[in-house]
Amino acid sequence: MRMRKKPWAAQEVQENPFVVLSPELHRGAWRTLFGNEHPIHVEIGMGKGSFILENARQNPGINYIGIEKQESVIAIAARKLAAEEEIRNVRLVCGDGAGMATLFQDGEIQKIFINFCDPWPKRKWAKRRLTHHRFLRIYQALLAREGMLCFKTDNQDLFEFSLNELLEERWQVRNVSLDLHKRIRLFPETQNIMTEYETKFSEKGQPIYALTATNQL
Amino acid sequence: MRMRKKPWAAQEVQENPFVVLSPELHRGAWRTLFGNEHPIHVEIGMGKGSFILENARQNPGINYIGIEKQESVIAIAARKLAAEEEIRNVRLVCGDGAGMATLFQDGEIQKIFINFCDPWPKRKWAKRRLTHHRFLRIYQALLAREGMLCFKTDNQDLFEFSLNELLEERWQVRNVSLDLHKRIRLFPETQNIMTEYETKFSEKGQPIYALTATNQL
Repeated sequence: MRMRKKPWAAQEVQENPFVVLSPELHRGAWRTLFGNEHPIHVEIGMGKGSFILENARQNPGINYIGIEKQESVIAIAARKLAAEEEIRNVRLVCGDGAGMATLFQDGEIQKIFINFCDPWPKRKWAKRRLTHHRFLRIYQALLAREGMLCFKTDNQDLFEFSLNELLEERWQVRNVSLDLHKRIRLFPETQNIMTEYETKFSEKGQPIYALTATNQL
Repeated sequence: MRMRKKPWAAQEVQENPFVVLSPELHRGAWRTLFGNEHPIHVEIGMGKGSFILENARQNPGINYIGIEKQESVIAIAARKLAAEEEIRNVRLVCGDGAGMATLFQDGEIQKIFINFCDPWPKRKWAKRRLTHHRFLRIYQALLAREGMLCFKTDNQDLFEFSLNELLEERWQVRNVSLDLHKRIRLFPETQNIMTEYETKFSEKGQPIYALTATNQL
């Protein structure tokens, strides 16, 4: 979703200590930046950041990197993060899925989250979907052995497309849910941290689709 | 779906030449019964047979075996089959999924169809679903190398369950469709032969779920 340009966003992004301004410089050395050897989890298209912040709060032993291409959006996440004193295991990067290989070395990431990404509904746009096989091949390289991709969407067509792309590319797909919140009602032990978008859509009763996929390399 | 008992069904099943009365005797020798070396495709729970009969009509180079546990239902399919003079590549068997291993030898089948099987919705009934892993293991043994399972249902929960079972059992799942008839509208070249049930439900606009899965042994 496009957001109106915020006049304060550029400055926030420049000055906020959690935004990494030259992320390519940390390629292969993110653990040095974080100052520890914890695993790295990346959310591509993190939006306003509520998903990644809640993950970071619950898992202090994991380093989180949120990638978002809109400056106005990353600025909001950065402000929130700066305000939450107990969360210090998150960094934010302005970028997109296509640029992932300039940011990370092969095998550097343990988990990638893609939540409610743009469905690019027209057939001719399929290549732009973040689960198109050209992206999946990038993720596969960047993920460590047994690394995992976690995917959620409210868009049925995108989910079907993504599932078939993953299967064709021979990822080990697991935990397919065609109605995640129904599953959570039935199995309350199901772990799920909601995104802003998910909260809004699931409140309307719209089904949320989810899966995990493990890199087989 | 249970059907009222038909008084003529028992006799029809006994006398109809397309119903195989002692199918265990043909275990490992179905090709001899058909008198050729054509591949064998099996539908488990064929109902009144319109799916298998249409397949047989379109593919004279394949031998079809329809399995159905209700005598009243198999009798209807048998009558239809006897009336269609050009179809001679179908045999019908009274039985169920659990008995498959008594009917076929390992590797004897090229394709298994499961269409709109009973969803057994309660959790405690999961073992009875024809896509529970205890059944999948039987199919895996009976299918030839590169043999395929083709599955369709209108039941979302059953589809989700089946997909996860297949993935856990490491079948190669392909062609997942969360709305088969929408896909057919978009890609008219998609091959699909409808069952009685499917015609009824898709006319009501209910989505049909489908997938294929290849045995990896």
